Amino acid sequence: MSDMLNLGLIGAGRIGRLHAEHIAYRIPNARCLIVADVIEEAAQRAADEFRINYAVADYQTILNSPAIDAVVICSATHTHAQIIQEAARAGKHIFCEKPIDHNLTVIDAALAAVAEAGVKLQVGFNRRFDANYARVRQAIARGEIGQPHLMHIISRDPGPPPMEYIKVSGGIFLDMTIHDFDMARFLMGCEVEEVYTAAGVLVDPAIDEVGDLDTALITLKFANGAMGVIDNSRQAVYGYDQRVEVLGSKGAVQTDNNYPNSAVISDANAVRRDLPLNFFMERYVESYVNELQQFVDAVLEDTPTPVTGEDGRIPVLMGLAARRSYDENRPVRLDEITG
Amino acid sequence: MSDMLNLGLIGAGRIGRLHAEHIAYRIPNARCLIVADVIEEAAQRAADEFRINYAVADYQTILNSPAIDAVVICSATHTHAQIIQEAARAGKHIFCEKPIDHNLTVIDAALAAVAEAGVKLQVGFNRRFDANYARVRQAIARGEIGQPHLMHIISRDPGPPPMEYIKVSGGIFLDMTIHDFDMARFLMGCEVEEVYTAAGVLVDPAIDEVGDLDTALITLKFANGAMGVIDNSRQAVYGYDQRVEVLGSKGAVQTDNNYPNSAVISDANAVRRDLPLNFFMERYVESYVNELQQFVDAVLEDTPTPVTGEDGRIPVLMGLAARRSYDENRPVRLDEITG
Amino acid sequence: MSDMLNLGLIGAGRIGRLHAEHIAYRIPNARCLIVADVIEEAAQRAADEFRINYAVADYQTILNSPAIDAVVICSATHTHAQIIQEAARAGKHIFCEKPIDHNLTVIDAALAAVAEAGVKLQVGFNRRFDANYARVRQAIARGEIGQPHLMHIISRDPGPPPMEYIKVSGGIFLDMTIHDFDMARFLMGCEVEEVYTAAGVLVDPAIDEVGDLDTALITLKFANGAMGVIDNSRQAVYGYDQRVEVLGSKGAVQTDNNYPNSAVISDANAVRRDLPLNFFMERYVESYVNELQQFVDAVLEDTPTPVTGEDGRIPVLMGLAARRSYDENRPVRLDEITG
Amino acid sequence: MSDMLNLGLIGAGRIGRLHAEHIAYRIPNARCLIVADVIEEAAQRAADEFRINYAVADYQTILNSPAIDAVVICSATHTHAQIIQEAARAGKHIFCEKPIDHNLTVIDAALAAVAEAGVKLQVGFNRRFDANYARVRQAIARGEIGQPHLMHIISRDPGPPPMEYIKVSGGIFLDMTIHDFDMARFLMGCEVEEVYTAAGVLVDPAIDEVGDLDTALITLKFANGAMGVIDNSRQAVYGYDQRVEVLGSKGAVQTDNNYPNSAVISDANAVRRDLPLNFFMERYVESYVNELQQFVDAVLEDTPTPVTGEDGRIPVLMGLAARRSYDENRPVRLDEITG
Repeated sequence: MSDMLNLGLIGAGRIGRLHAEHIAYRIPNARCLIVADVIEEAAQRAADEFRINYAVADYQTILNSPAIDAVVICSATHTHAQIIQEAARAGKHIFCEKPIDHNLTVIDAALAAVAEAGVKLQVGFNRRFDANYARVRQAIARGEIGQPHLMHIISRDPGPPPMEYIKVSGGIFLDMTIHDFDMARFLMGCEVEEVYTAAGVLVDPAIDEVGDLDTALITLKFANGAMGVIDNSRQAVYGYDQRVEVLGSKGAVQTDNNYPNSAVISDANAVRRDLPLNFFMERYVESYVNELQQFVDAVLEDTPTPVTGEDGRIPVLMGLAARRSYDENRPVRLDEITG
Repeated sequence: MSDMLNLGLIGAGRIGRLHAEHIAYRIPNARCLIVADVIEEAAQRAADEFRINYAVADYQTILNSPAIDAVVICSATHTHAQIIQEAARAGKHIFCEKPIDHNLTVIDAALAAVAEAGVKLQVGFNRRFDANYARVRQAIARGEIGQPHLMHIISRDPGPPPMEYIKVSGGIFLDMTIHDFDMARFLMGCEVEEVYTAAGVLVDPAIDEVGDLDTALITLKFANGAMGVIDNSRQAVYGYDQRVEVLGSKGAVQTDNNYPNSAVISDANAVRRDLPLNFFMERYVESYVNELQQFVDAVLEDTPTPVTGEDGRIPVLMGLAARRSYDENRPVRLDEITG
Repeated sequence: MSDMLNLGLIGAGRIGRLHAEHIAYRIPNARCLIVADVIEEAAQRAADEFRINYAVADYQTILNSPAIDAVVICSATHTHAQIIQEAARAGKHIFCEKPIDHNLTVIDAALAAVAEAGVKLQVGFNRRFDANYARVRQAIARGEIGQPHLMHIISRDPGPPPMEYIKVSGGIFLDMTIHDFDMARFLMGCEVEEVYTAAGVLVDPAIDEVGDLDTALITLKFANGAMGVIDNSRQAVYGYDQRVEVLGSKGAVQTDNNYPNSAVISDANAVRRDLPLNFFMERYVESYVNELQQFVDAVLEDTPTPVTGEDGRIPVLMGLAARRSYDENRPVRLDEITG
Repeated sequence: MSDMLNLGLIGAGRIGRLHAEHIAYRIPNARCLIVADVIEEAAQRAADEFRINYAVADYQTILNSPAIDAVVICSATHTHAQIIQEAARAGKHIFCEKPIDHNLTVIDAALAAVAEAGVKLQVGFNRRFDANYARVRQAIARGEIGQPHLMHIISRDPGPPPMEYIKVSGGIFLDMTIHDFDMARFLMGCEVEEVYTAAGVLVDPAIDEVGDLDTALITLKFANGAMGVIDNSRQAVYGYDQRVEVLGSKGAVQTDNNYPNSAVISDANAVRRDLPLNFFMERYVESYVNELQQFVDAVLEDTPTPVTGEDGRIPVLMGLAARRSYDENRPVRLDEITG
């Protein structure tokens, strides 16, 4: 393969545009040749802004183009699995936003198609590529804190998304906690065997009306005996709260939020600083560049992608178990969940 | 009553000596007239060091002395309830170290005796009087963070106590977590209705051999819909780790550990500071002064004590529920637990 | 003018390559058409890496090209003023790295040529565009700390540059402190009238041998009555130390260094974190993008550049005064210094 | 000598009462037998509150009492030297609040009397006994930061004292900076040879009317080649600002202010914490206990006091030099100043 990867982008919404910008300006060894979006003018706008040659409505154009090496799937979640299968059959390598699907059977079919085609697949768990989480993983992997015993993952959004989004989101566990499930496995280097969910609707009663939850504490039991808890809220009024801490036999590691600046102002009332970065587009921007760069490099160098199809599947399984735990108010083992 | 409270101290071990020192040097309106300890020379040593007139082996001397207004009970846990009853009948006001007992029936008998005698009782949940926790309580009570939604209590010892201690401790939940159960109720201003415990032995297998646990995550569901988690470990090698954070509808509050100094040293390897204060005698020394001062003031001014008998009873109930939750691996409601 | 600025880059060394990368990947409305370097293969390498059409040895090619709107001067310091004059006469707008020159008469001639040609000039004081310093400026400008009274600028390199560099650097005050002189004026929004320098060679005796200094404290007296001190060292073994604090009548503002991550690791020895970002290429990377973006926008929109020729001249004047203060061990007024 | 030191307290104002409280409650091996104050009812009030047997108006009663081992001088500054001389002649050991006097000749006479009598003298530079500064001193003494190069001492009061106080204070350098001069010598373990003062009246014009200053930056040149700066302001509206940082050849050390609690509150506006401890009675309370404890121990054990008469004299010399530097706007060597 050449030293430049030709990409097709499927989906020109918020996250699709972010990847398009990174491909255009931040990733030297990739370029986006075609962008597809069911709203063709959205595709055209992305093409204009991010140096993409063609804008189309139908992603089949991308799959049929021999110039395209790989696709970046940023379309609506319910289309992911279908497009993965088609792309795999078309011999395209695949970067797909999370989650692959809300249904394990559908996911399995998609992963089977990928395996059969022998193409590479990377799932968009971008937080692994963030400097703070990467440093925590490094501390654990290097033994700086010994054997991990206890983990806290704090993951709170600045405010709830629109109700229209929540209705199709698959619920808080598949939409929001899924990142934290991935983080738990990634940081610990070990699988979760059982979950217990305490949750409720404390932020907005409308979320209850559509059967979803907005606040949760999910206890995790890992195969190595360690335990963890994920703290989720749809509303931290001070901004995007993304922290982790792990206690181990030889120490502990803890991260803080990222801030727009380090200035601290002391006046007659308080010692204060500006709020942390508000949401994922700002907070995790570098991690989005890094994940796509690593995908591009993995394809060009024919090495494994850093987040596999299985890495995309297991957090969905965990999300389903977390919901069942809430519904039945009991700890649920992951091996109880089947597609 | 005069403006000076005459105290008798029962038990001259580590915590008894701490209170004796505070009475001698830090609390202007109290004095200790008699100290009793089953090891009479321990009593004598405390008397010599902390300006106490008499040292005796038998605490009955204290209860029989008309000069004594109130007793400070720092003897072994299994003697607390019995001494409370006798002191109440002798008309002495009572400050008693936690826990009152490991058995709810025994506790209820002690509290009944107190009620009947009409004496004051304060239980030694000193952390309420610590500046950090008091500020968190104030933030919640004042509405600075709105309605509380999620709470994390981190409470880790620097290392496990001797096995001899563990064997008679009542188990981690009644010995160690009991402070955190009190803190959860105190900070939230609301009762816990259900607990779920994930726990294990990760620090020292010897703790498993005596049927106890050394690492735990206990999920709490509060009556107001809020949720919390207590993180306990018998071993944080970097020192005593005592923090809390609470997320509410209008903000969040978070405390840090206390340190012996604020010096930060940057060298060619790291930016570092000295470890936090190692254990409760250093970390909470001011809170021990404050709690006893408030007890003394409550007796002298005939106002309610800030930590009541019921405040001493409920954390024991929570500890029993937490253990049952662990044993049965299911959430346990507090109203399932009966004496 | 069109909505895309055509640049020529003069000098393909470390800082020239940085700007080339930013023009290629981070600044959407500019492109670099030609890069010139006296070492032609350096120019060619930059052209290959950063999407530049032509690489040449002689910068006259750039000045003679009608397609070029503006030049970015990153050549050796002693060539800056000459190239500024030639570029001005060629009608090119100019972005020039600091310092313009070490000699005030030479600077004045360059600024006169710019004024006569009516082209725009921006000097590369990038730190103004850093988020931390910008927030301090904002705090002062908004009145968040009232009237400024006292300022500390900490500015320490991780280690001394090669002696070959030091010999031609113009000395610590024109090479290193010049950024801090600019920062003092920028943050305070007011001119310095007098300086007093305490300085010495504490890091490396070789620096003394070439007549330069490596450690300095420079007191500044501002026209508004405020006072400040600049703390410079050529060696902070823990990394690039870049902080500022300002006390005002209504409060104070203080910045910290930037770190590669926020992870704090507590072990049996210390509570520690990784060292701050090591040097300016990492620490100030965003500020370099911002300054060039603002230059590009100023040219395209025909607005004033945010760092003028006068802003380039005054810090040189301050550096000359600081050196004279050291040589004569007395406070020196800026109006004592003449070209 | 016995194992209990009998003290007489001279002066029952703010600082005298503080020491009285500490002697009564915090220092086990000392007791105060007599307190003297020219306002006899102030003496009586202190006696009542702090377990002192006798209250008198005339301090001669203390000097004439054979039961008294040592005196604690907390009277008005202009009386210090006279009382030191009389106490020395009476054979009493002496703890004296800073400064000894504003006049070097007077100080020298007092120190001569102490030397002749062979009594011990300790001057009240309490900050040496504060945990933060002690840790900085330890870091330097242990070589944790290598050879010191640059020092910043930040020392700002929350607000100016009453004008009546300022008029008799000896000026900012002898009243306020004197602590920082002591700190500079103590931390560096080396003498200052030259000072340069930039100063003004920025806080309150009334301070100018009485010929004093309220804001200053004082540059220090040490005998070992290191340099430092003291930053003084009579008004930091956010509270008592007491910090230091030192850069050395192998690293740096930096302290922060002390806070009433560690709680950080994040809401929709800012991430904030409570203001630092407001003033010296709160901020330095432990250091006052420590200094007096060490004085008591030094007398009882016949060891040298940790802050000598010479340590009391040199900061006065530095203060006189700092003022001359301001008056003449030039660096002033300490050896220019003579009594």
